[in-house]
Amino acid sequence: MLPVAVDAMGGDRAPDQIVLGARQAAEAGLPVVLVGDPDLLADTGDLEVLPAREVIGMDEDAGRSVRTKKDSSLVRAAEAVRDGRASGMVSAGNTGATMASALLRMGRLRGVARPAIATPIPVPGTTPTVLLDAGANAECSAAWLLQFAQMGSVFARQRYGIAQPRVGLLSIGEEETKGNSLVKETHALLADGQAGGDVDFIGNVEGRDIMTDAVDVVVTDGFTGNVVLKTLEGCMRFAMRSVLASFETNDEARAAGAALLPSLLPFAEAMDPDTTGGAVLLGVSGICVISHGSSSARALVNAVRVAHTAATDGLVGLLAAAVS
Amino acid sequence: MLPVAVDAMGGDRAPDQIVLGARQAAEAGLPVVLVGDPDLLADTGDLEVLPAREVIGMDEDAGRSVRTKKDSSLVRAAEAVRDGRASGMVSAGNTGATMASALLRMGRLRGVARPAIATPIPVPGTTPTVLLDAGANAECSAAWLLQFAQMGSVFARQRYGIAQPRVGLLSIGEEETKGNSLVKETHALLADGQAGGDVDFIGNVEGRDIMTDAVDVVVTDGFTGNVVLKTLEGCMRFAMRSVLASFETNDEARAAGAALLPSLLPFAEAMDPDTTGGAVLLGVSGICVISHGSSSARALVNAVRVAHTAATDGLVGLLAAAVS
Repeated sequence: MLPVAVDAMGGDRAPDQIVLGARQAAEAGLPVVLVGDPDLLADTGDLEVLPAREVIGMDEDAGRSVRTKKDSSLVRAAEAVRDGRASGMVSAGNTGATMASALLRMGRLRGVARPAIATPIPVPGTTPTVLLDAGANAECSAAWLLQFAQMGSVFARQRYGIAQPRVGLLSIGEEETKGNSLVKETHALLADGQAGGDVDFIGNVEGRDIMTDAVDVVVTDGFTGNVVLKTLEGCMRFAMRSVLASFETNDEARAAGAALLPSLLPFAEAMDPDTTGGAVLLGVSGICVISHGSSSARALVNAVRVAHTAATDGLVGLLAAAVS
Repeated sequence: MLPVAVDAMGGDRAPDQIVLGARQAAEAGLPVVLVGDPDLLADTGDLEVLPAREVIGMDEDAGRSVRTKKDSSLVRAAEAVRDGRASGMVSAGNTGATMASALLRMGRLRGVARPAIATPIPVPGTTPTVLLDAGANAECSAAWLLQFAQMGSVFARQRYGIAQPRVGLLSIGEEETKGNSLVKETHALLADGQAGGDVDFIGNVEGRDIMTDAVDVVVTDGFTGNVVLKTLEGCMRFAMRSVLASFETNDEARAAGAALLPSLLPFAEAMDPDTTGGAVLLGVSGICVISHGSSSARALVNAVRVAHTAATDGLVGLLAAAVS
């Protein structure tokens, strides 16, 4: 199997944690190639480094940076996939520039109107809920959302082994009359079976259903999806902080909190974004995994595993077949 | 002061908990009048009952039910406000029908394009964040959102005593170039100061900012706002359930959990929707408080207090002045 191209320069903790994670992935049997400036990378061990002398910063304009920084690690990583030198790419860097690199260098998958970001939302006790689009397209049409349903369904099947993923359309009520015009139009297409027999459309779902076992794939436009993602992030952070603060109210609470930590750890572990392995850009002609900006070495290992498994499973071919 | 008209028939726990709450509110010095079918109401004590023989169910179509059930408790409560017999109305019933009753019977406030639902999101340790529109208008224009900024600002000042509420526009990035076309257009209007000098626009905010002290009023369209509200609801429920489940893992955790409960209670209390007193429909010619469907007597007391205080403070006049 080809190696996964890891953008060594992308992420708040790059390059150290990224290089460390890449080495750990290789030690775990996942083939990896680093992409970055060899002069800036230390402790790369036995890993091959594809040289790329430029870096796209976290806050740079996505389109402009990808057009002008042709020797950046992000662009080179996407080219490695395009040229058949890597099975997929992983970056914890600038999300917009990662999408733009993948789109411009690998190209869109034949038949796909717009690629979408599929983000797994952890649901302890069961498989994560796949939310898409989590931010690639701030404005969407119903036809695009129909494809998101097809691609999300394929992805949930490939990544989580769900035979028949339940696909819900995010709205503000279960009835088909609820929602904005985009949702109503998309509902009509999905209810009419236009996504094909492989999409098990269960109707509208609401925000409160995302973190439950009621649905496997939640389809929405990239604006709403990104707002939901960040709302969940803020809410979980808030809840964790509140629980930890309650441990500090007095000595008895402190002792009880210490006793409870082992019981809380599996939950915290399940909710940790480092565990989920990152989001995947669906609809480009290659595997592109977007790891969160503060990715640790552990997050990187998980992201490489997601990319490697998707490549091994032939995710891109499965997506192409689903939208054709 | 005129009494607050309480829809005795609305809500999952009506009429018993609603009547009980109305009596408790009266005992606390808040003037109340019940609206409902006297034959179906028990234990009303000394409370006056405005007779209304019909009931609008929780799942009935909002527009149709309000048009056809002219003797419903919801319609009669709105009429009591319109006719100067009540200072405001409170209902824990069908949200859509509550909005429709208020809109059709009280009318829109002069100059207001569309009323919006303002929902307080609890933020323990500081004042709640006011989210609007939380679901009245699934589709919005930038001009409406501009008015939501004005009305939300007035409301945060009246209800929480915030001298200069910080108003943020919900988007998917802080930069003004981020968001969908509605957000970009609204951002331009707000940044241009078109909401007037009383609106302190701090720019775009993200979902993760809602439950923090970074912003006082979050402006968004009713689709996104309702999705956010239900996402937060699901997330908080999930977090609480996960913490409680961690108390059950073994005997030591059970003992520690019992010891921690007193420290967790203030947090649970702050997050309990019964505490916040309900959402307010801003932009109609009267006070209309929407309490959540599962409201207990305690929730009802708090909702009546919100309505009474808003009436005493002259909220409707303040809103009219802000949008004119």
